[in-house]
Amino acid sequence: MEEEKIIRWLKEHCVPERNEVKTGIGDDTAVVEYDRENYLLLTTDVVVDGVHFTTKTASLYQIGWKALGVNISDIAAMGGEPLYGLVSMGMQKAKARFYRGIYKGILDIARMFRVDIIGGNLSRSDVLFVNIFLAGKVKKEDIVLRSTARPGDLLFVSGTLGGAQKRKQFSFIPRVNEAKIIIRKTKPSAMIDLSDGLASDARKLAEASGCGFEIEAWKIPVSVDASRKNRIFSALYDGEDYELLFAVPPDTAKFVPEKIGDVRITKIGKLTEKKTFVLKNKDGSKNKIFKEKFRHFS
Amino acid sequence: MEEEKIIRWLKEHCVPERNEVKTGIGDDTAVVEYDRENYLLLTTDVVVDGVHFTTKTASLYQIGWKALGVNISDIAAMGGEPLYGLVSMGMQKAKARFYRGIYKGILDIARMFRVDIIGGNLSRSDVLFVNIFLAGKVKKEDIVLRSTARPGDLLFVSGTLGGAQKRKQFSFIPRVNEAKIIIRKTKPSAMIDLSDGLASDARKLAEASGCGFEIEAWKIPVSVDASRKNRIFSALYDGEDYELLFAVPPDTAKFVPEKIGDVRITKIGKLTEKKTFVLKNKDGSKNKIFKEKFRHFS
Repeated sequence: MEEEKIIRWLKEHCVPERNEVKTGIGDDTAVVEYDRENYLLLTTDVVVDGVHFTTKTASLYQIGWKALGVNISDIAAMGGEPLYGLVSMGMQKAKARFYRGIYKGILDIARMFRVDIIGGNLSRSDVLFVNIFLAGKVKKEDIVLRSTARPGDLLFVSGTLGGAQKRKQFSFIPRVNEAKIIIRKTKPSAMIDLSDGLASDARKLAEASGCGFEIEAWKIPVSVDASRKNRIFSALYDGEDYELLFAVPPDTAKFVPEKIGDVRITKIGKLTEKKTFVLKNKDGSKNKIFKEKFRHFS
Repeated sequence: MEEEKIIRWLKEHCVPERNEVKTGIGDDTAVVEYDRENYLLLTTDVVVDGVHFTTKTASLYQIGWKALGVNISDIAAMGGEPLYGLVSMGMQKAKARFYRGIYKGILDIARMFRVDIIGGNLSRSDVLFVNIFLAGKVKKEDIVLRSTARPGDLLFVSGTLGGAQKRKQFSFIPRVNEAKIIIRKTKPSAMIDLSDGLASDARKLAEASGCGFEIEAWKIPVSVDASRKNRIFSALYDGEDYELLFAVPPDTAKFVPEKIGDVRITKIGKLTEKKTFVLKNKDGSKNKIFKEKFRHFS
């Protein structure tokens, strides 16, 4: 896979010199020393016209919401709290007035999660993009990486999956508070946010932890927006759910809440010693799960 | 001016809630509390194909060098030390192999300034851009804002100005070490890095400090690369010099070094009570300095 190759290259070439860097490239955020009790979390993500939205189908407000939301979701997946955002936008000169509409979306979700927008810039660009950098913090004892789960750990997912392209990608609520509550009840052994789709992101968590996984198809909580043609397929591959996927050791799984507010928490499978990525059907048959849609598993 | 209008709007709408935020939008970097001795500096800047470079005239290595260099220059202008970088790139899928060439430039200047690259992402985009976020720190007693100079303070500039489009924009050495040495000898009352050109950036420093300025044309250190047709004009308006402009109270100006290594430090004028922006010629005549090239002063 191209992405894997790139990340491998980056990890090889970007070896941090400072001991203060706890995690560099390869998790939802970078982790560095902050103060005695907290780590500093640093992350950046971009939304680009024609790739993550189109100005034909998304309002400026929605573009702004999504641009900051995807970054907050990364901080949530570490168990952290977002703090400071910097906004870098590119747009055609003739569309410079767009920045206000986009900022309204950014500032509304920023207010919801107490993010201070403390910097930014506006550049000319033939393609509209909104690149946000977000700094956050997490109590040292609360941090959850994606690489620390073990075979046998159970897999849970928040909310429902699939069909996010319809609505949710522009209005999702990053799971900052849910992550905090989960960690308080029982600390997950690993966690990741679902941006590329369950199939792809579950594999990232499993591989980072040196495991495979087995997901029980009929347990996946499918969204009402998922494609009716193949609901499981939609939940596995559509992406942009911005839910949490996390692993919990079997002996503490009973402490995982079933619901947090309106958000269901669902057990969907487990991590395995064998490094295969398996979808188990109710009739006992099994399919391989590929990372991407075009390698259809059925 | 459009840019001023945007910054005013942003300052009005992005009022930080946290006391930890010492400076938000409107300086070279944002400033927040870090630990007892240091502030954390956060900045982001982007280079876009067709605006800040073209792939026809710049090598991938040069694009990478510039992308991180402009951010390091912002940290330098605060008196700080760069620490952690995150790299967000957009490019066409067919050009994804470009990332390696760009990263080589990024990693070389990163090594030179001990910046750890600890995160990033690669997105599809019809226009090539490299957006870097940089975190740094500065000793609390060393920080230099752009808003704290006073009328009568003398203006100094590092290096030479003008014609940076020829070569320097892709190979400049951000003035991190020079800034540190200047601060150790005598702390400037304000400082800014020259990205948009002396005319524009001197005005930013002066306005932020509630002053005007008077620059003595014949004292401006003009680069050998400046346009031969109008050398002063070139030094004032070309931009992309990435030198330091700083103000020093007259009674301590004698402590400003004349040279740091190969880099000349030149006194070019002073800040004034009267909020006008004046270029003084050797014959005693005066011109108004506009911020932008197209409002030619002569």
